[in-house]
Amino acid sequence: MRCFHLTVAYDGTDFFGWQWQPDRRTIQGALEEAVQRVTSEKLRVVGSGRTDAGVHAYGQAVSFTSSTRLEADVLLRALNANLPSDVRVVNATETSSDFCAMRKSTGKRYRYVIHNAPIQDVFSRNRVWFVYDHLDADAMREAAGSLVGRHDFKTYETSGSPRVGTCRTIRDLTVSRGLRGREQDRIVIEVEADGFLYKMVRNLVGTLVQVGKGKQAVGWPEEILAARDRSLAGPTAPPQGLYLLQVFFPTADQ
Amino acid sequence: MRCFHLTVAYDGTDFFGWQWQPDRRTIQGALEEAVQRVTSEKLRVVGSGRTDAGVHAYGQAVSFTSSTRLEADVLLRALNANLPSDVRVVNATETSSDFCAMRKSTGKRYRYVIHNAPIQDVFSRNRVWFVYDHLDADAMREAAGSLVGRHDFKTYETSGSPRVGTCRTIRDLTVSRGLRGREQDRIVIEVEADGFLYKMVRNLVGTLVQVGKGKQAVGWPEEILAARDRSLAGPTAPPQGLYLLQVFFPTADQ
Repeated sequence: MRCFHLTVAYDGTDFFGWQWQPDRRTIQGALEEAVQRVTSEKLRVVGSGRTDAGVHAYGQAVSFTSSTRLEADVLLRALNANLPSDVRVVNATETSSDFCAMRKSTGKRYRYVIHNAPIQDVFSRNRVWFVYDHLDADAMREAAGSLVGRHDFKTYETSGSPRVGTCRTIRDLTVSRGLRGREQDRIVIEVEADGFLYKMVRNLVGTLVQVGKGKQAVGWPEEILAARDRSLAGPTAPPQGLYLLQVFFPTADQ
Repeated sequence: MRCFHLTVAYDGTDFFGWQWQPDRRTIQGALEEAVQRVTSEKLRVVGSGRTDAGVHAYGQAVSFTSSTRLEADVLLRALNANLPSDVRVVNATETSSDFCAMRKSTGKRYRYVIHNAPIQDVFSRNRVWFVYDHLDADAMREAAGSLVGRHDFKTYETSGSPRVGTCRTIRDLTVSRGLRGREQDRIVIEVEADGFLYKMVRNLVGTLVQVGKGKQAVGWPEEILAARDRSLAGPTAPPQGLYLLQVFFPTADQ
């Protein structure tokens, strides 16, 4: 048996999320169908983690073992020829037999895109969160800075997915508004951590937006960490602005 | 009665084109429904021209006369509150009573976007033409240059829409490949003229792509003008890469 590591991009708009469900269009299901058509094997592919309905990916990590004789580059082209146009394999490599996209991951990076303008942009309606009220990106950036590092993020976890422990290390958290033309209407938040709790990115974004609107002080997102209470934080930002950018692995498993 | 001039953006993906049709989702139909909800008037809105199914717009020009007492800026917000999210009024002004978005137009500018890469981009699948074979953008630019000016463009007209005369003046026709990162996979063609024949932009693009692929010489798009024969030109480029950018009017009517 051989083990493959795929990097997968998808537009999450028309999917019920990553995880396979009977009679529903999911990314895992679409990949498994394509693998079956290419290799004639009915198997399970493993993702680095689930993404919710409407969430997108530039770089979801996927692994599976197969007895196919196809080389990775041929497999990539064959899978893409059998996938719907809203899912693409952007990279494929053969890897060590103990590789697992979920267990081996050492971290992830997400992007969240807010369109902050009085008139919606028709071309990004399923790809961003529209916020009409003007947001103070500088205040959001300052607030975000205080969340970097190792903290108990229980305040930013939506219940429903039991985890062992709620401490995580945010390695990087940036907030930036575009500089020119239409880009000035865009606020892009990027966050990298060793792991994320359920809906943690969307809860962080919803909280930072309260600061951006001036409804809460810059110090508030950090203050509410100590309470370990989800009800104190801002609302969950909608899924369509969220992108899984990259999944990190130990160098030997890249 | 008062006359309004709207600038309208739309994602053409889920529409059967601009023109009203019974029981079909069209941009004209969506605008007329919104106007009716806002003003209680059942009226016809006029577009600068029809766009085909799948074609997008950043700046379609629309005019209509109404007895509404709403000011233009209030009308804009009210229409947007009643339009589906794939159509937005981006500008609204009150104009002289003889203004007509179709008859008064002095020219238009279109953009056509080609994604030229071995792997499709999931996020632009309804917004670009995917071309797998590498395109020589320099050759396309040189070929495009020879079409600027006043010519009989009958070779580039798809039959089906009778017009008085087939001479038009292309004022500007540019071809450029992006310079950095993902943008290097993009070829953007922009064309401005005093008017366009039916499917002229898409026929020009399909022809320039034959040059970009090396299947035809740089001088070919100009050579075939003289024959006034559509069958000589390249295939019609698909609709989803085409954007109506701007419609021009005499200064007094802007």
